[in-house]
Amino acid sequence: MTDYELKYQGYLNLVNCKIEEFCNGLKCRPKILTDSLKYSLLNGGKRIRPVLMLAAGELFNLKCENLINYALAIELIHTYSLIHDDLPCMDDDDFRRKKPSNHKVYGEANAVLAGDGLLNTAYSILLSECFNGGNNVSAAKFLCDCAGIYGMIAGQSADILYENTDSNDESALEYIYENKTSKLISAALIVPCILAGGKYYAEFMQLGSALGYLFQLTDDILDVEGNFESLGKSIGKDEKQLKFTSVKLFGLDMCKFKADLICDKCNKLLDCLDLEVEFLREFINRVKTRIN
Amino acid sequence: MTDYELKYQGYLNLVNCKIEEFCNGLKCRPKILTDSLKYSLLNGGKRIRPVLMLAAGELFNLKCENLINYALAIELIHTYSLIHDDLPCMDDDDFRRKKPSNHKVYGEANAVLAGDGLLNTAYSILLSECFNGGNNVSAAKFLCDCAGIYGMIAGQSADILYENTDSNDESALEYIYENKTSKLISAALIVPCILAGGKYYAEFMQLGSALGYLFQLTDDILDVEGNFESLGKSIGKDEKQLKFTSVKLFGLDMCKFKADLICDKCNKLLDCLDLEVEFLREFINRVKTRIN
Repeated sequence: MTDYELKYQGYLNLVNCKIEEFCNGLKCRPKILTDSLKYSLLNGGKRIRPVLMLAAGELFNLKCENLINYALAIELIHTYSLIHDDLPCMDDDDFRRKKPSNHKVYGEANAVLAGDGLLNTAYSILLSECFNGGNNVSAAKFLCDCAGIYGMIAGQSADILYENTDSNDESALEYIYENKTSKLISAALIVPCILAGGKYYAEFMQLGSALGYLFQLTDDILDVEGNFESLGKSIGKDEKQLKFTSVKLFGLDMCKFKADLICDKCNKLLDCLDLEVEFLREFINRVKTRIN
Repeated sequence: MTDYELKYQGYLNLVNCKIEEFCNGLKCRPKILTDSLKYSLLNGGKRIRPVLMLAAGELFNLKCENLINYALAIELIHTYSLIHDDLPCMDDDDFRRKKPSNHKVYGEANAVLAGDGLLNTAYSILLSECFNGGNNVSAAKFLCDCAGIYGMIAGQSADILYENTDSNDESALEYIYENKTSKLISAALIVPCILAGGKYYAEFMQLGSALGYLFQLTDDILDVEGNFESLGKSIGKDEKQLKFTSVKLFGLDMCKFKADLICDKCNKLLDCLDLEVEFLREFINRVKTRIN
């Protein structure tokens, strides 16, 4: 393993241990509620957002113990959004990370409740952190607003609105990606930034926005060029569902070119920071070249 | 109008003004997201929970300005739960307060997002209150946990589990009602109690639990004896959907008898409090005799 891979594995272990600890502590009744929450949380996801958060926290010399509950909360929020996204009335995905989607296993009603439950639990965890004072309320509020009706939910709403349209409105696509994807990725960077006092806030906001767009571009590309085996979900769904995507708007080649440009932009942003950014640099590079 | 009715109207006006102010401030894009949130919030609900909260706050001499955002948040949480409950995969209700349900107007995908959005926004509002320090974090956390996977969501999950069964397990029914209904009603009483320092916490917990059960009993009775005109939603659905209800378990007469007993219990609890409880006494009495 390279230094980068060792470091990623280290963060991933911390995140996965925390998620397992959380899951082991779940004692919801009826048991099906506990089971459905665990099913979606313990499925070997890449944990992009919490890993990014811990990595950013290390740049600011934050103690892991002060950040790990935020890392858990952001993964709960991400997981809730996947469960609701996969519902038949939304993206209607039968598979997620090679396994049947939550609603395929537990039924739609339980999947709606599992999503609601994860979202609510994220805020229970964040409110617990707020007892510690300091910048915790600001950090929790920032994460909350990134996930909310002026953030991720607005992006989802716009995504649905543009389905089945012939739009070629690039600004609409940017709005969707900025909100649907970038906001939560920005939160992963900004929560540690706020907890540490706010240094480089503007730079991290720009970085989060660019990284989210890059993530979404590669997502669109993989929906065309990926395969079920590595991606773990159905391929070619965007075209079939007449989704409004970057590939539809720009074509594959231009999407790849755009991904290169955004990668360059991210690297330039990192150059401005007087921090040990090598891990982030490689993280971004691997988002561009990812196969899942 | 009686003194009680004047007072109820006063609280209701405060709540409705706050909700209108909130709705007027909504600027979500796409507009359909704003519209769907407003649609479900501005439909003339009884505002039982926020009114109860303001009334309890007055007993503790809390300033309205310190409580009104909690009143808004609890109504957002209640409204989200109704939107998700009404979905075809859940209770499949086409009407709510005489108007088509959210998903009948905006489609299922938008209704899922509207519910998610209201839940998330409730926590954005609660986290804003947390900046004020004092007991605000405790109060927000309490409300959050009442709505969560050991509260309302657990109750919903159990409710679904017992649908289409021949259960005659009274303790299961009590678990469902305690969580699905009582927890959020308890929160309406306990949030002001916590903000005021915690006096009568145990008594208000018992009162909330009993009042929630009473509310659910009358709900079950109205599903049989009510009419669409006053109730604003479809009648006879519990039996048609093979729901597990108090009427199914005990029969109508016994439900009414139980409602009387719980009313007595509530009154005895109120007798123990050295507070001006006349409004609460009448509030409870009217829950028992309500027609909507």
